Amino acid sequence: MEICQPFLVFLQQHLREAVKKKILVANRGEIAIRLIRAIQELDCTAVAVYEKPDERSRHIRLADEAVLLGNGPRCDYLNIRKIIAAAKHTGADAIHPGYGFLAENPGFAKACEEEGIIFIGPSSKVIADLGNKVVARQIMADAGIPMVPGTKNLPHGEEGLQNAIEFGRKYGYPVMLKATSGGGGRGIRRIDTEDQLVNEIPVARAEAKAAFNDDSVYLEKVVLEPKHVEVQIIADKTGKTLHLGTRDCSIQRRNQKLIELAPSRVANPELLEEICQTAVKAAKAANYFNAGTVEFLIDKDLNYYFMEINTRIQVEHTVTEMVTGIDIVRNQIKLAFGYELSFGQEDVQIRGHAIEMRINAEDPKNNFMPEGGKKVSVYRSTGGFGVRLDGFVYQGYEIPEVYDSLLVKLTVHGFTWDETVGRVKRCLKNFAIVGPKTTIPFYLRIVDDPDFIKGDFNTSYLDTHPHLFHYEESIGEAGKLAKFIAEIHHRGENPFAS
Amino acid sequence: MEICQPFLVFLQQHLREAVKKKILVANRGEIAIRLIRAIQELDCTAVAVYEKPDERSRHIRLADEAVLLGNGPRCDYLNIRKIIAAAKHTGADAIHPGYGFLAENPGFAKACEEEGIIFIGPSSKVIADLGNKVVARQIMADAGIPMVPGTKNLPHGEEGLQNAIEFGRKYGYPVMLKATSGGGGRGIRRIDTEDQLVNEIPVARAEAKAAFNDDSVYLEKVVLEPKHVEVQIIADKTGKTLHLGTRDCSIQRRNQKLIELAPSRVANPELLEEICQTAVKAAKAANYFNAGTVEFLIDKDLNYYFMEINTRIQVEHTVTEMVTGIDIVRNQIKLAFGYELSFGQEDVQIRGHAIEMRINAEDPKNNFMPEGGKKVSVYRSTGGFGVRLDGFVYQGYEIPEVYDSLLVKLTVHGFTWDETVGRVKRCLKNFAIVGPKTTIPFYLRIVDDPDFIKGDFNTSYLDTHPHLFHYEESIGEAGKLAKFIAEIHHRGENPFAS
Repeated sequence: MEICQPFLVFLQQHLREAVKKKILVANRGEIAIRLIRAIQELDCTAVAVYEKPDERSRHIRLADEAVLLGNGPRCDYLNIRKIIAAAKHTGADAIHPGYGFLAENPGFAKACEEEGIIFIGPSSKVIADLGNKVVARQIMADAGIPMVPGTKNLPHGEEGLQNAIEFGRKYGYPVMLKATSGGGGRGIRRIDTEDQLVNEIPVARAEAKAAFNDDSVYLEKVVLEPKHVEVQIIADKTGKTLHLGTRDCSIQRRNQKLIELAPSRVANPELLEEICQTAVKAAKAANYFNAGTVEFLIDKDLNYYFMEINTRIQVEHTVTEMVTGIDIVRNQIKLAFGYELSFGQEDVQIRGHAIEMRINAEDPKNNFMPEGGKKVSVYRSTGGFGVRLDGFVYQGYEIPEVYDSLLVKLTVHGFTWDETVGRVKRCLKNFAIVGPKTTIPFYLRIVDDPDFIKGDFNTSYLDTHPHLFHYEESIGEAGKLAKFIAEIHHRGENPFAS
Repeated sequence: MEICQPFLVFLQQHLREAVKKKILVANRGEIAIRLIRAIQELDCTAVAVYEKPDERSRHIRLADEAVLLGNGPRCDYLNIRKIIAAAKHTGADAIHPGYGFLAENPGFAKACEEEGIIFIGPSSKVIADLGNKVVARQIMADAGIPMVPGTKNLPHGEEGLQNAIEFGRKYGYPVMLKATSGGGGRGIRRIDTEDQLVNEIPVARAEAKAAFNDDSVYLEKVVLEPKHVEVQIIADKTGKTLHLGTRDCSIQRRNQKLIELAPSRVANPELLEEICQTAVKAAKAANYFNAGTVEFLIDKDLNYYFMEINTRIQVEHTVTEMVTGIDIVRNQIKLAFGYELSFGQEDVQIRGHAIEMRINAEDPKNNFMPEGGKKVSVYRSTGGFGVRLDGFVYQGYEIPEVYDSLLVKLTVHGFTWDETVGRVKRCLKNFAIVGPKTTIPFYLRIVDDPDFIKGDFNTSYLDTHPHLFHYEESIGEAGKLAKFIAEIHHRGENPFAS
C-alpha cells in the first residue's frame, strides 16, 4: 500500500483555522466528493482512498490526503483490512462508508468498533439485524408496522411445503419466493401458480445456499404496480428520532432507481404524514441511530407496506436536502461524534419540490447498457437558482469500465411542481456530454410525458411507457451544431447566408 | 446590424412543448445567463443581443437566438434604438433589461411602452420618479418613511446659502452636499465645516450642471459607519405588494458591493420586521410594480433611514432567492405578462442564511484594479448542496477589458450561519482560476475574520480591517501544486520519496 500525502495537505492545514477531526472516506465517485465537501465544511480533514483505475478521479484531488489501496478493481474498496489500515496509518478518527461497497456490511462496522474508529452510521448490531430480512420483518411485526403479508422462514420438508401452499391459497398468486439472506434485487423469484411454487422451493433453496451460504427462504404477497415511497429518518444517541419527509423513487430500471422526487406526489397529506410517523416508529423499534431510510410500497388502494430499512446514506438524499434545507451528511458526521440533533421535528419544513435525475453513462435504448471505458471528450454542465450538481467527471475523463455508470446527479428544486419540472428540463438541455451515451435524451422524453408531469407513475412506469424510448440522439447533435455555428460565426461568416 | 439565427433555434423550437412568448435580454455576462435560464424554464424563447467584444460570451450560445448589435464597446448595449430594432426584428414580445446599462433608464422603458413591447420592470413614470432623488425623497416624506434629515433643492443665491448654514448648525457636521440628478456614488461631496460649505456650494452646482445638465443640489446629514440593509419587494398590477426579507450589503469597496447576506445579521427581529413593513409602505407610496429594492442605512443606535429604491433586479438578488426559495426573475417575467402574485406574505418564509461573494477579476491589493484583458487559462469551480453559481466564463475565455470585472457569483445557503460560513469557505478553496487575479484570496481572509463571523461590520469594514489585505496568492499556487503532484503521482513516482 503506497501512501500519498502531498504537500498540499501541509498547506491546507496551515490555511485552515483548526483541524478538528480526521475522517476517512471509504468510497469513490460522486459520493466521495459529497462526503469530502461536508467534512471540509466542518473544518475537518478528509482522507480519500482509491484503487488504481480511479487514480484520475477528482475525489483524490479534493481530499486533504489520499491513500492508494491497491490495483482493485472493486476488491480493494471492499477490503476491510486495507481500509482499516489506511485509517490507522493516516490517524483518522472516523470512517464514512458512503453507499454501496462496505456501507451496509456489519463486519466492517464491527471492525471499526473494535479498532476504536468511529463508524459514521448505525451500530454493527443494527446493520446486521436490518440486513437480515426475516429478523427485520420480525422486529417490525412486533412493533405493529404494516407489512406485506408473508411467511417466516419456511421449515424444511413437507411442513414448509404445506405452509407455502396455504399462504398461496390465502393471499392468491402471484407471490414472491425470497431468499432470507438476499437483497438488492437478488434471490427473488415470482411464482404464479401452486405447481410452480412446489417445483421452485427446492431450486430456490439450492441457489440461496450457493449464493448466500444460507438456504432459508420465505414467501411474500406481491404488491402489483406499487409506488416506491421512502422516508428519510435521522436519530441521535439520546433516541431522539426525526423524519425528513418522503421521497418517491418509483421510476426504476431493473430495481435500480433513475429519478427520485421529494416529497411524494401522492395527493393525500394525511397518508404521507402517517407513513412518516410509521417510519419513525420503525426506526425506534430497531434502536436506530444516525441517518437511514425506511422504504415502503404503496398499492393502488393507498395501502402501504414496510419494505426495508437502508442503513446508509442513499444516492437520492439530495432531494430531501433540497426541500428541507437540512444537510444530512453534515448531521451524520456530527451525530457520529456524539452531538445531539440541534433541531426538532417542527423545524423540518418541506418547501417546494425537488427532482433528482441520475445522469448515467448508459444507453437506455440498449437496455441501459453501461458505456464505461469511453472518454468524456466534451463535458459542459449547468447551474443557476435551484440547481445542484453532485458529480465527479470532467472533460477529458476516461470512465473506468469497472465501476458503476453514474456520472453526475442533477438535483433541482422549485417553489412549485411546474417550476421544478421546467427547471430540470432546462438543465437537461444545457448539458453537453460527448463521448459516452447518457440517460439525458431519455429523461428529456420523461419530462414531457403527461403521466410524469401529473405524478401518475409507479414501479412499472418504464414498462408501461415504451414510447419514451423513441427519441433521436438529437441533443448531443444540437450541442455540436451550436458549437459549429458559433465557430463559423466567430470567423465572421454567416452559415445561413444564401 | 447582423442577425444570427442559428438552426439550433429551429431544433429547440421543435424540442419544446410550446413556445409561449419571446423575450429579448438586453444585457450581457452573468445576468444575461440568469435571465435566459428563467425565460427558458417558463418555456419561452430567449433572444440574446451582443457587441463584438462579447462574441465569445456564453450567453449567446445559451439563448435561442442572438443579434449582433454592433462593435461597441458599451455604446451598443446602451443604444435604445438598436435594441428596440432587434426586438422588433426578432418578434420579441418583451425585453428584460437586467441591471446596469439601460435597466434604470426611463427613456428606454418609455420607448418600449411606445413600441408596444413589454418592459420587464416598473413603468417609465415610476423609474423616472424614483431616479430623481428629490422627487423620491418627497414621495417618501409624504408617506412618512424615515429618512436621513436633508433639505429640498437649495434655492439659488443668498436664500439657499442661509438654508444650508441653518441645516449644518441644526444637525452638525459632517453633511453631504448632493447633486439632485446624481446617483451611483457620483455628484456627492462630504462637507466638514461651515466655511467649506459656503465655498463648495457654487463649485458643486457648476459640476452638477456639467455632469447632469442640472445644477440643483441639496444637503443631507451624514450617517456615520452605517450598515447598508435593503429589502426586496415585489408587487403585481393589482397593487398586492410583498417583501422578501432583508439583505445586508455593507461590505463594499468604493460604494460597490462585494459580499451580500440574507437575512441581515442585526440581532433585532422586531426592527428588521419594521424595516420590511416600511419598505412595503415605500413601494406602495411610489405605486411600485414588479420587483424592486428599497435601500436603507442603519446607524449605530439602530435608527434606520430610507436611502433609495432601485427599480431593477439587483446583482445580489440570489441571496434572497436562496433563503426564500422564490425565483424573483421568474416572477418578474410572469408579473410583466399580467399574472398576479401566486403567493402571499405568509408564504414568504426565511430559511437559514445565504452569502453571495462576487468573484471579480480584480487585484484587491492594488485598489481592486480590474484584471480585464487576461485569459482564463484554468477555470475550475465548485458545487454541491447549498451552492449556487451564476457565471459566464469558461476555461480559455479572454476577459474583455471593456466591461465590468465580475466573473462569477458564488452564493451559498446553509441551515445555520456557521454552516453557511463553513460552506462558502470550502467553496472558495475549491475554486482554481489561473490567469487574472481575483477576489478569492481576499475573501478567504474575510471568512476567517472574527468580526465577519460575528456579523459585526458596516460600510467602513474594509477601511477598518486593513490586515485583510495581507495574504499570499497561495490558493492558486496550492491548486497548481496539487495538479503537479497528481501528475507526478499518475506516472507512478512519489515526489516525496527520499
